[in-house]
Amino acid sequence: MSSKLTAGDLQIVSRIPVFRGLKAETVEQIIAPATAMMLRPHEWIVRQGDPATAFFIIIDGWVKLYRSASSGDDTVIDIMTTSQTFAESVAFTGGRYVSTAEAVSEARVARIPADHIVRCIRQTPEIALAMVASISQNLHHLVQQVEQLKAQSGVQRVAEFLAALSTVEQGHCSVALPYDKILIAGRLGLTPESLSRAFARLRTIGVVVDASHVMVRDVAKLRQLAADERSAVRGTLRPVR
Amino acid sequence: MSSKLTAGDLQIVSRIPVFRGLKAETVEQIIAPATAMMLRPHEWIVRQGDPATAFFIIIDGWVKLYRSASSGDDTVIDIMTTSQTFAESVAFTGGRYVSTAEAVSEARVARIPADHIVRCIRQTPEIALAMVASISQNLHHLVQQVEQLKAQSGVQRVAEFLAALSTVEQGHCSVALPYDKILIAGRLGLTPESLSRAFARLRTIGVVVDASHVMVRDVAKLRQLAADERSAVRGTLRPVR
Repeated sequence: MSSKLTAGDLQIVSRIPVFRGLKAETVEQIIAPATAMMLRPHEWIVRQGDPATAFFIIIDGWVKLYRSASSGDDTVIDIMTTSQTFAESVAFTGGRYVSTAEAVSEARVARIPADHIVRCIRQTPEIALAMVASISQNLHHLVQQVEQLKAQSGVQRVAEFLAALSTVEQGHCSVALPYDKILIAGRLGLTPESLSRAFARLRTIGVVVDASHVMVRDVAKLRQLAADERSAVRGTLRPVR
Repeated sequence: MSSKLTAGDLQIVSRIPVFRGLKAETVEQIIAPATAMMLRPHEWIVRQGDPATAFFIIIDGWVKLYRSASSGDDTVIDIMTTSQTFAESVAFTGGRYVSTAEAVSEARVARIPADHIVRCIRQTPEIALAMVASISQNLHHLVQQVEQLKAQSGVQRVAEFLAALSTVEQGHCSVALPYDKILIAGRLGLTPESLSRAFARLRTIGVVVDASHVMVRDVAKLRQLAADERSAVRGTLRPVR
């Protein structure tokens, strides 16, 4: 289901990092033909391999990006929420969507046609620089994920994930898991069983998981665990020199 | 050590994917101020965290991109060779280099100043679209690496790496490992010990590794192994539906 953006949608969309540094009238020009998609859980937005005709801004809710292998199995690449964007890179290059995007929760997503953006870029090259900045952020995020997958153990990845959700630097806090445990496992490159084992191990440093509610005795300890002993875990390299 | 590009350098640089679709005079304008860096093994090109002032095209040799943790350990993000580019995204956004780039072998690398490219983009917006296409390729490559790290076992990753190096679709072939085994392990997110175990297991399907020389009895078998049984390995998700 697709409709025009509301005033509330426009507020969120016009403030996303992609458009930072652009004049208000330039942003208005870009988002003029945007439509809002209302999605229920499990509805897809784009499909891996389809020609890329638009890029997307999440207004509300959670969206997962995943890739399907020929065997029928899926791998979660990323899980995104409000103000995050996807498919901006392929949309301008006449490429195909690299992954499927699917709503995890009820979600509202703005869709901006690619051919419109390409026309805008030809008129206002500053837009291209802004888009490169945005794509660059997504690239940075992927680089961090590659580093995390190679250099951190499962427990460390879970510790970092929980620490990133907390709003305090140290001391006690409680955290709500943003989506279900199967998805968290997929995001972190773990089986659901390994995630359960990691939660069990974190209990020894005062982290108690009860359904989607997590009590953390000391966030500083979580951060320390995530950073520590990288050399002891799978896939880390000593400098070759 | 830095010098002007030779005629041979220009041939390689002007044909890279980034510049595909641009007019010859546009490409000439972009690469006019480029310089060539001659590097010995272990010399660095850029350092993680430094302000990004240029982007780079590899003319010859191998370059690794890696990130250093505060503990002093390094994680290999990617290993690149002739015609591949790096740092194009951060160079246009006034950001900082996301990883350190270091020569693995003797290498020759073209350096193009970022402020020059930004000026070119303001004059010729088509350049921006070409750059987005290039960044998009690097992004796609990272997405594939994330998928591989999450969904494939160590043996499967090694099988895919070897299959990608072979020049035939099926049957017998011999392959030269492009860089040393510690780096290959780092690229694939394995410890050197896990890489050795994977090589030993591949022997059972007719893959014999002798120093940097690999004899493969049937490449099709390697490809099949890489694709097979994804559901049986770490970090794969069944569709949630």
